[in-house]
Amino acid sequence: MLVHHLYSGGKDSSLAAWMLTRLGYDVELVTVSFGLLDNWRFARETAEKLGFDHKILYLPREMLEKAAEMAMEEGHPNNAIQFIHERALEALASLPEVERVSDGTRRDDRVPILDLPKARSLEDRFNVAYIRPLLGLGYKTIKELTERLFVIEMGESEHLEKGDYEVELRHLLREKGIDPLEIFPKSHYQSRVMGWKGL
Amino acid sequence: MLVHHLYSGGKDSSLAAWMLTRLGYDVELVTVSFGLLDNWRFARETAEKLGFDHKILYLPREMLEKAAEMAMEEGHPNNAIQFIHERALEALASLPEVERVSDGTRRDDRVPILDLPKARSLEDRFNVAYIRPLLGLGYKTIKELTERLFVIEMGESEHLEKGDYEVELRHLLREKGIDPLEIFPKSHYQSRVMGWKGL
Repeated sequence: MLVHHLYSGGKDSSLAAWMLTRLGYDVELVTVSFGLLDNWRFARETAEKLGFDHKILYLPREMLEKAAEMAMEEGHPNNAIQFIHERALEALASLPEVERVSDGTRRDDRVPILDLPKARSLEDRFNVAYIRPLLGLGYKTIKELTERLFVIEMGESEHLEKGDYEVELRHLLREKGIDPLEIFPKSHYQSRVMGWKGL
Repeated sequence: MLVHHLYSGGKDSSLAAWMLTRLGYDVELVTVSFGLLDNWRFARETAEKLGFDHKILYLPREMLEKAAEMAMEEGHPNNAIQFIHERALEALASLPEVERVSDGTRRDDRVPILDLPKARSLEDRFNVAYIRPLLGLGYKTIKELTERLFVIEMGESEHLEKGDYEVELRHLLREKGIDPLEIFPKSHYQSRVMGWKGL
């Protein structure tokens, strides 16, 4: 039972990957890249530290351009992040070898998250199972599990080296002469998993 | 890390209990009873077959009376089942020794299910974590996991001996001279877990 799991190197997607292995799944981690930067390397490093297979899924740069336009028009990145995540899931689910896709989206996240009709539509259109191990967990449970499992580094999004969509989106905005701090929340702490906590 | 898990003996709540153990939780199964019948015994039997601790949580008969009135007024059991489930979670979460509550509710269930504000409210009012292991899983994933894990008996709700709310609700309706088949869906197949599949 192989599952292809969208992976950033952060604690949510790492916890979800661990949960999948505990349920008996073979897990292949997949990090999205638009080819602008090689920040997928940070996700790969973490994947290697945790002992998971890791691949890169390249998405067309036009998608990131469209997301950047959305973020600029709206002055906020939420819809842009949601847009990228939906396209990433579709691209992954459309690969012929993929039967199950998963991600680290949480009950308490505002974005990215697929509502029930969108989750079912993804499963039906691509004939895959869509598994979200964290969806039924609140912040207390996620905190208690990640603290038990992982050595975690915290930092601000602007500085922490990560493998998530935000990094290339911020980069593209900078290329367009936009300061990402005008669009992204100011003090947005993010996490990166550095390894297992002595398991 | 002890979690108190609402349990009927069915495959959903059994799968959720198994998932909790795989995540490192100690699991105590809890079956609700209004004291009308002893159908909690079917849940206890399954709990014993699976090797879990099991307790009964008695709820006041007035709650079931109110649920029966809702079902009769509406000609459908959905709001009654939802009502009982919310009261059961609250009663469990309010016990002084309880820090974590969980259940087997699924992404694709219409009832019972707590929406996000209700889930957060439960956690905040009673200072517990509310864990729903199946919430991020679709029917394909639940099917694949339960078929791997459990020996399952299928039957119609009206005949299968089970430990869920429905049994006492149907019984009370019959006591009131109402045929439950006029209120519950006609051919509602339910499942009961008979044991582990050679694990």
